Amino acid sequence: MDYLRKYFPILEWGTQYSGKTFINDLITGVIVTMMLIPQSLAYAQLAGLPAEVGLYASIAPLILYTIFGTSRTLAVGPVAVGSLMTAAAVAPLAAQGTPEYLGAAIALALISGLMLIIMGLLRLGFFANFLSHPVIAGFITASGVHIAASQLGPLLGIQIHGEALFDLVGSIIGSIGDIHLYTALIGVISLIFLFWVRSKLKPLLIKLGLGERAASMLAKAGPVASLVAAILVVGIFRLDDNGVTVVGFVPEGLPEIAMPPIDLGLWSGLAVPALLIAIVGYVESISVAMTLAAKRRQRVDPDQELIALGASNVGSALSGGFPVTGGLSRSVVNFDAGAETPAAGGYTAIGIAIATLFLTPLLFFLPKAVLGAIIIAAVLSLVDVGALKRTYVYSKTDFAAMVATILVTWIEGIEAGLIVGVALSICLHLYKTSRPHVAVVGQIPGTDHFRNVKRHAVVTDPSILSLRVDESLYFPNARFIEDQINGGVAANPEIRDVILECAAINDIDSSALESLETINQRLKDGGITFHLSEVKGPVMDRLKRSHFLKELTGEVHLTQFDAVFSINPDLAHQTRNSERKEE
Amino acid sequence: MDYLRKYFPILEWGTQYSGKTFINDLITGVIVTMMLIPQSLAYAQLAGLPAEVGLYASIAPLILYTIFGTSRTLAVGPVAVGSLMTAAAVAPLAAQGTPEYLGAAIALALISGLMLIIMGLLRLGFFANFLSHPVIAGFITASGVHIAASQLGPLLGIQIHGEALFDLVGSIIGSIGDIHLYTALIGVISLIFLFWVRSKLKPLLIKLGLGERAASMLAKAGPVASLVAAILVVGIFRLDDNGVTVVGFVPEGLPEIAMPPIDLGLWSGLAVPALLIAIVGYVESISVAMTLAAKRRQRVDPDQELIALGASNVGSALSGGFPVTGGLSRSVVNFDAGAETPAAGGYTAIGIAIATLFLTPLLFFLPKAVLGAIIIAAVLSLVDVGALKRTYVYSKTDFAAMVATILVTWIEGIEAGLIVGVALSICLHLYKTSRPHVAVVGQIPGTDHFRNVKRHAVVTDPSILSLRVDESLYFPNARFIEDQINGGVAANPEIRDVILECAAINDIDSSALESLETINQRLKDGGITFHLSEVKGPVMDRLKRSHFLKELTGEVHLTQFDAVFSINPDLAHQTRNSERKEE
Repeated sequence: MDYLRKYFPILEWGTQYSGKTFINDLITGVIVTMMLIPQSLAYAQLAGLPAEVGLYASIAPLILYTIFGTSRTLAVGPVAVGSLMTAAAVAPLAAQGTPEYLGAAIALALISGLMLIIMGLLRLGFFANFLSHPVIAGFITASGVHIAASQLGPLLGIQIHGEALFDLVGSIIGSIGDIHLYTALIGVISLIFLFWVRSKLKPLLIKLGLGERAASMLAKAGPVASLVAAILVVGIFRLDDNGVTVVGFVPEGLPEIAMPPIDLGLWSGLAVPALLIAIVGYVESISVAMTLAAKRRQRVDPDQELIALGASNVGSALSGGFPVTGGLSRSVVNFDAGAETPAAGGYTAIGIAIATLFLTPLLFFLPKAVLGAIIIAAVLSLVDVGALKRTYVYSKTDFAAMVATILVTWIEGIEAGLIVGVALSICLHLYKTSRPHVAVVGQIPGTDHFRNVKRHAVVTDPSILSLRVDESLYFPNARFIEDQINGGVAANPEIRDVILECAAINDIDSSALESLETINQRLKDGGITFHLSEVKGPVMDRLKRSHFLKELTGEVHLTQFDAVFSINPDLAHQTRNSERKEE
Repeated sequence: MDYLRKYFPILEWGTQYSGKTFINDLITGVIVTMMLIPQSLAYAQLAGLPAEVGLYASIAPLILYTIFGTSRTLAVGPVAVGSLMTAAAVAPLAAQGTPEYLGAAIALALISGLMLIIMGLLRLGFFANFLSHPVIAGFITASGVHIAASQLGPLLGIQIHGEALFDLVGSIIGSIGDIHLYTALIGVISLIFLFWVRSKLKPLLIKLGLGERAASMLAKAGPVASLVAAILVVGIFRLDDNGVTVVGFVPEGLPEIAMPPIDLGLWSGLAVPALLIAIVGYVESISVAMTLAAKRRQRVDPDQELIALGASNVGSALSGGFPVTGGLSRSVVNFDAGAETPAAGGYTAIGIAIATLFLTPLLFFLPKAVLGAIIIAAVLSLVDVGALKRTYVYSKTDFAAMVATILVTWIEGIEAGLIVGVALSICLHLYKTSRPHVAVVGQIPGTDHFRNVKRHAVVTDPSILSLRVDESLYFPNARFIEDQINGGVAANPEIRDVILECAAINDIDSSALESLETINQRLKDGGITFHLSEVKGPVMDRLKRSHFLKELTGEVHLTQFDAVFSINPDLAHQTRNSERKEE
C-alpha cells in the first residue's frame, strides 16, 4: 500500500478530499483555464504547430499530473522554452505544416516522457543537476530573446526564417519593408495593452475598490481580453480578407487517442533533443514546485516528479499533443488562486476540454499577431540581465559558462548552447579543483592552531614541511599534489619530515591514493618521512582498506599539533609555553 | 636569460658540464643504445611501419629532448602503447605498407608534437589529469594484452587482422592451422630465452662472480643477444627461403629532413588520436620522470616537459619517424647506468645514428618472429591484475571506470576505451559529489564539539536543525542540499532555526549560491531563520561579493557552538556545565 501511495500520490490526498477543498480547487481551475487557453494557443504557434495541438497538450497531461504529481500547486502544460525547443528539434526533420512535422512533435513528447519515466524509476534525477545555474540562466535568457525575435514575424506580418537567432535577426532586417500594416497595428497594440495590464491594471482595480486578490486575478485575464477584442475586430471588419493572418479553422471535439509514429530513424534523430527537453523541462518544473511547496511547508518528491512529468508527456503524445512541463507563471497563479490539491489541475483540464468542444469556432478570426504579442509579453520576463552581472561579480568561471551558453545558443542554436554550457561547466569545475589552494602552515605561538605561513605570524621548523590542501584529493588534482610536494622538498634540502594536513579533504579516490603512495615512496627514497594529520573518519575508513597505511613511513596523527609534537616536542611546547607566559 | 633557461634547460646544466659527468653519460649512452636498437625495430613492427622508421624515431627526438627536457634521466623513443595507438589511428586511413600509411604515421607524430607544444606554452598540462589512475591503469593493462595478441601473428608466422582485441583473437583462432613451423620455433625459443634472461640471468652472472650492477646491465642485453643469434641462424640456414619472414632490406644512412604530408582531411582525421597519443604519452612520461627525479631530489617542470616531448615528436616527424615518448624500462636503465644529465640521451642518439649508418645490412636476416617475442616479453609486464583487485577493494566506482575502460578497449578499440573511461570517471565523480554526506549534528555534552546525531550521544534542541555537509557546494549537489533542508524542515513542524555547518565546504559556486538564496527565502516564507557557521575564509570572501549575506535571515557564526549559543544560550551552557560538574 505504501508502495502504491508512493507512485500514486492521489491515493494520499484524494482520500482526505473535502467539500471546502473542492470549492477552492474548482475556483482555481476556472481561473487557470482562462489563463491557459491563450497560452496553449500561443505556444502551439511558437512550436510551429496547429492551434488545437496546444489545447490537446493541456488536457490529458493535467489529468495525469493530478494522478502522479507530488506538488499540490504545480500547473503543467505547454511552456515557452519547451515550445521553442520542440520547434528547433522538429524543424530539421520536416517542413512546418506537414503531417510529418506534427508527427515528429508528438513523437518528441512520447520519447521525452518515456525518458523522464525511466529516469524516475531508476532514480536518475541527479542528471538534472548537471545543468548548473549559470547554464540554465544563460540558456533561458538566450531563449527568451530568441523566442521574442521569432514572434516578430507573426507580430508584424512578415515571413521570417532561420534556426539560430542571428539568422532570424538577419531575416527580420531583410523583411522590414514587407511589414503588413493591419497585422502590425493589431500586434503592437496588443503588446502595449499586455504590458499595460501587467504593470498598471492591478493598482487601478485596487483604486477602483477591488480587493487585492481579486484585482490580481483579474489582471491575469489580460491575455484573454486581448484575444476576445482582436477576434471581434478582425471578425467585424473582416481584416482576414485584408491580409491579416488568422488561426482559421480549428477542429472541434476532444483529441483522439492514437499511437505516435514509431520509426527508428525518426526516434534516433529525436533522442538528443528529447533528452534535453526532458531535463530542461524537469529543472524548470522541479524548482517551481519546490519553491511553492516550501511556502506551505509541503514536500515534493524529486524522483516521483520525474515519473509524473513523464506520464504527462506520454499522455500528451497519446492524445496528439506536444511536450509539456510545469510552468512558472501558471503555477504561481494556481498557488495564489488557492489551489489546495492537484485536483485543481484536473478541473483546469475539464475547462480546456469544454473549450475544445465548444469554443474552437470562435478562434477562426483570432489573428496570429495577438498570439505573437502574448508570447513576447510572456518571454521578455525570462531575460535576466541582472543575473549576468551578479554572476560576473561572484565567479568569473561561472560567468564564462553563462556567456558561452548564451552566445552558442544564439549563434549555433539551442541544443548546441545547452551542450556546450554543460560541458564547459564540468570542465571549469575540474579545472578549478585541479589546482586547489595549498598552504604551507605553521603553528600560531601559544596555541594548537596551524595557519598559512603567508597570512599569519607562525613558528615553523625548517626540517618539517607542513602542507594543507583545501580540496578533496581526486584524479584532476592528484598529480598536482605530487608536484607541490616534490617542489617543496626539492627547494629545501633540510627537510626531513613532510606532514599533510587533511582537515579539508572529504574524499581520496584511487588516483589520489596512488599519488599518496608515490609521494610516500619518493620521499622515502629521499630519506624523508611522510605523515598525515586530521584525516576525517570516512576517509580513514577507506584508507584502511588499502596498503597505504602499512607503507606509510610516518604516522597518521589526530591533529596537526600532535604530528609536529611527535617529531619535534621541544618546538611545539616551547611556542606554547612562551605565549602562555606572556598572557 | 631566466626566460631562455626556462625554455632551454640545457643552458642550465650544460654550463656546468664536467669531464667526469661526460664519462658517466657516455657509458650510459652506450648501454641504452644496446637496449634501444631492438626496441626501436620491434615497436616499428608493432606500429606496422618499416624497421628504419623505428631507428629514425630514436635519433632526432633524443637530441631534442636533451635540449628541452627537464628530467636528467628520462629516455625518449618509441614505446609499446604509443606504437599500438599509432597503428590503430593510421590503419583506418591507409593500407599497411603503403606510402600513405607511413605518411599518416609521420603526420601523427607532427600533430601530436604540435599539440604538446601548444599545451606546454598555454600551461594546459592539467588536461592530462583527466586521465584518472584507474582509467590509465585499465587502459595500459588492456593494451598490454592487445599488443601481445597482435604479435602472435609474426611470432607464429600466421596472418592475422582486426582492430579490436576480440577480432584479433578470432582471427588467431581461425589461423591456428596455418602456423609456420620454423617461424614459430624461432619465436617461441626467443620468448623463452627472453623470459629466462629476465628472471635467471642476473643471479647466474652474480654467482659467476660479476658485480651486482654489471650483472644487471648485462642482463638488459638479452634482447640484443636474441637478435644476433636469430640473425645468424636465419642467415646461415637461409630460413628466409623456407618461409620465415625477415625484416629484409633496410635503407642505410641517416634519415632525410622532410616536411610530413600537410592535408586538411588527413589532419582532421588524425586530430583525436593525436590528442590521445599526446596525453597518454605525456602521462606515462611525466610519471616516470617525476619518480626518477624524486630519487635524487631533482625537480621536473611539468609544463616544460610538454614542450620537450612536443619538440621530440615534431623532430621525429621531420626526420621520418613516428610518435615517441619517455619510456619506463629504458629510463630506469638510463638512471641505473648512471646518467647524470640529458646529454646521455644525446650520446644514445649518436649510437643509434651510427647503427643506422653501418649496421642496417645486418638486419636483413632478422626474423620478425624475434621482434614479436621481444614485444610480448616487454608488454606482459604492463598487465597489472593486482591493480584491478586493489581498486575493487578501495573504491567500487573507480573499479567500475577501470573495468569499463578495459572492456571497451578490447571490444571497441583503444580510442573508444580511453574516451569512455575518461567520460565515466568524470560522471562517477559528479555522481558521487552530487549526493554528499549530510549529517544532522548535535552538541557533545560538556564540549564545544558538534557531531553526527546518529553516531554520538549528543544534545539537540527540537526547534533547531543543525546540518553539516561534507562536500563543497556546487552545481551537481546544489539542489540536493535544497531537498535535504526542505525535507528536514517539512518533517519537523517545531523547527524555528536551521544552521548549516560549513567546515567541510571548500567552495560555493553560483549554482550553490542560488540554492542558498532559495533555501533562505523558502525558510523565511515558512517562518524559519537560516544561519551559517564555520564558513572558511576564502568562501566567506566570495559570499561577501554577493547579496546573500544581506538577505540571510540569520547570522554567519564563527563556530557551530556560537550559533547554537546565540539561539538558545541556556541549552548550550547547560550541557557544558552539566558535564563540567561531572569532571
